[in-house]
Amino acid sequence: MGERHSHTKTAAAAGASALTIAEVRLTPVLISDPPLLNTQGVHQPYTPRLIVEVVTADGGSGVGETYGDTRYLDLARPLAAALPGTSVMDLNGLFALAETVCGEPDGVSDSVDVGGLRGVQTADKLRLSVVSGFEAACLDALGKALGVPVHTLLGGKVRDRVEYSAYLFYRWAEHPAGETPKDDWGAALDPEGIVAQARRFARDFGFTSFKLKGGVFPPDEEIAAVRALAEAFPGRPLRLDPNGAWSVETSRSVAAQLTGVLEYLEDPASGTARMARVAADGGMPLATNMCVTTFAEIPEAFRTGAVQVVLCDHHYWGGLRRTRELAAVCRTFGVSLSMHSNTHLGISLAAMTQVAATVPDLAYACDSHYPWQTEDVITSRHAFQDGHLTVSDAPGLGVELDRTALQSLHQRWLDDDGAMRDRDDTAAMRVADPNWATPTVPRW
Amino acid sequence: MGERHSHTKTAAAAGASALTIAEVRLTPVLISDPPLLNTQGVHQPYTPRLIVEVVTADGGSGVGETYGDTRYLDLARPLAAALPGTSVMDLNGLFALAETVCGEPDGVSDSVDVGGLRGVQTADKLRLSVVSGFEAACLDALGKALGVPVHTLLGGKVRDRVEYSAYLFYRWAEHPAGETPKDDWGAALDPEGIVAQARRFARDFGFTSFKLKGGVFPPDEEIAAVRALAEAFPGRPLRLDPNGAWSVETSRSVAAQLTGVLEYLEDPASGTARMARVAADGGMPLATNMCVTTFAEIPEAFRTGAVQVVLCDHHYWGGLRRTRELAAVCRTFGVSLSMHSNTHLGISLAAMTQVAATVPDLAYACDSHYPWQTEDVITSRHAFQDGHLTVSDAPGLGVELDRTALQSLHQRWLDDDGAMRDRDDTAAMRVADPNWATPTVPRW
Repeated sequence: MGERHSHTKTAAAAGASALTIAEVRLTPVLISDPPLLNTQGVHQPYTPRLIVEVVTADGGSGVGETYGDTRYLDLARPLAAALPGTSVMDLNGLFALAETVCGEPDGVSDSVDVGGLRGVQTADKLRLSVVSGFEAACLDALGKALGVPVHTLLGGKVRDRVEYSAYLFYRWAEHPAGETPKDDWGAALDPEGIVAQARRFARDFGFTSFKLKGGVFPPDEEIAAVRALAEAFPGRPLRLDPNGAWSVETSRSVAAQLTGVLEYLEDPASGTARMARVAADGGMPLATNMCVTTFAEIPEAFRTGAVQVVLCDHHYWGGLRRTRELAAVCRTFGVSLSMHSNTHLGISLAAMTQVAATVPDLAYACDSHYPWQTEDVITSRHAFQDGHLTVSDAPGLGVELDRTALQSLHQRWLDDDGAMRDRDDTAAMRVADPNWATPTVPRW
Repeated sequence: MGERHSHTKTAAAAGASALTIAEVRLTPVLISDPPLLNTQGVHQPYTPRLIVEVVTADGGSGVGETYGDTRYLDLARPLAAALPGTSVMDLNGLFALAETVCGEPDGVSDSVDVGGLRGVQTADKLRLSVVSGFEAACLDALGKALGVPVHTLLGGKVRDRVEYSAYLFYRWAEHPAGETPKDDWGAALDPEGIVAQARRFARDFGFTSFKLKGGVFPPDEEIAAVRALAEAFPGRPLRLDPNGAWSVETSRSVAAQLTGVLEYLEDPASGTARMARVAADGGMPLATNMCVTTFAEIPEAFRTGAVQVVLCDHHYWGGLRRTRELAAVCRTFGVSLSMHSNTHLGISLAAMTQVAATVPDLAYACDSHYPWQTEDVITSRHAFQDGHLTVSDAPGLGVELDRTALQSLHQRWLDDDGAMRDRDDTAAMRVADPNWATPTVPRW
């Protein structure tokens, strides 16, 4: 299954410690994804993820997960090839190794990525996103070898449960074409549909915090949806995230209308300069997972007061230990930290939960797409209770690979003709609407 | 020996893990210190340090070290009393526990401390300085229990040796009065004396980087000493640290005269605002261990460009993991990091070396007073080779307590009438010069 990168230097291996990496397995998978709408288009029926396994000299192993698009795979392969012979304890060294072996990815020019939703796409960020999958695998292996949970390797949990928010999406009932996965959520294309979706999230998972992915309809319609949520769930924390689809003027207008209704507005406008102009009005805290997704973007954003909450995607930032460093930077400058999510599986959710458990000042419920994902590669899916996940105290990440499921999802990736191997929400939208143009920013 | 804080909740202890803390021992000691001069006065013949031991339920143990003045002891005692029953793995929780139990120290008013050399002295910073001793002890115990060096608990070393600089002092041959420790270094009170001292540091320890503690004589004399060092050691990194004794104008003048001669000028003027005015001239990088000694001081200092190098005293910042967080903050804002030192023993030097080994971007040799300390509480003293310490790969900090030495130095503390239990370089100077007034800043 997947691609194996083994250590062939027998002499070195014989003298190496039990925690030396003997083999790295990369398994790209395609996982089903509902037709969730955003400002770029719609989620594809399948989205790529990469599963990373490290196997140590003593037969131990660890597992990690990260983005699986082709350009991530292109960086992951040389890193996987270089890793055997190093130790799973050498987490700091992993970054230097990646810098040395990964090289520059093709077609990256410090621009926003094709999906448009992951913020700036620099070579550094792509590499760190790849490293995060390896770091999680090493932490998992190290934790299992030492008999401690990953949170102990991060200094210990400061809470026993991590709160997540319901991630509400405008969506269709079904993907527009092809043999695609189906679910029973139905369509949600107006305030009533969003409230109904939120009620099910509250009933099935106990979420009491709600985030609506916006940027899909004109702002007034999304304001109406937020107001409907506020009426249906009085006093509950609400958020709206149009992924930078609005102009500064529109953002200001929405912020003014929803001050006191939203706990924060996420990425109303695109780019730090525009965010700073919106933030300057005061009143509405702004959150981001688009204009601050790398350490390099922090100084300007913090200096200009552009963001009050950084939503950390631990993949972007280089893993769990870098996430804790980001938390320290944010704490130093009085900026809040919470967690962003993209379509992901249970390994990444375990990793998020482990690190979130260790961050003292986690003021907001974390995001997670996980309830939308019906497929997984772990034997026991995470179960939200009262909107929370219990922090695992089992060694490592506390998850176990379901190899049958992994093989099945990998086979889907192998069988794919390339159409789904790179997530492209704009292209997915064109299946339904051949005239759908790549949205220009701002849309409104 | 020392003070024991034991766990008396038998039921809880019985059910607790092997790494639950069963006992904490605090042992204040007085260690001999040569008559080293600084702008406040002179080092006392003895200086207080606090040795912290944690003993776990399975009989394992760990050791840490921090400042030992009375106000630190006053905070350490309630923390030691509260710790039994918690786990040495609960490093993040240690900070919250300390906030809860330590309370406010007496006589602290966000002012510069009596010694004048440790920067701002807030309740938070005093508490973090105390916590650092406990954190080191917990990391040592955890590392030994897991069979890994502390640097593994910090993500792994990125270098096998850590470079230190020679810490040159103007000094007398002997303390002015009393039965005091003696050494064979002799006096150093002019450029020739400083160069001779540097030559011995180079010969005995292999140091190739030199720092002169200034603020003792008028700036022209110290400039002459630096120029003499530059002539004696051409091309070697040199630094000068007057501990904030100079006005902005004097600082600017010295900086202009020594640009290209010093690699950086350390704390020429007192306070962030003055440092920023000096830094604004450009050309000479400024380092600090006085105006940036807490996370709270970072935003203003970085915004105003007041410092280009933060010299981290891991005690001030709350220990080794917080030091790594500081490194991340500095890296994010393009500020360099190096390590500060105060009079300390081998436990703290081991801790410094472990964390320094894990920080990728350590651009300067670290400071250490260690060569001036002839007494220690560890069985095998650290040995500098070529100005470096080899990073220990032994479990924990890689040091072992010498209980005979510890008892002896503790007995000295017990026997002291209180005169030496709080370091006060100004009072020590009055022994030689009864008319010595507390220096006003700026002196020049």
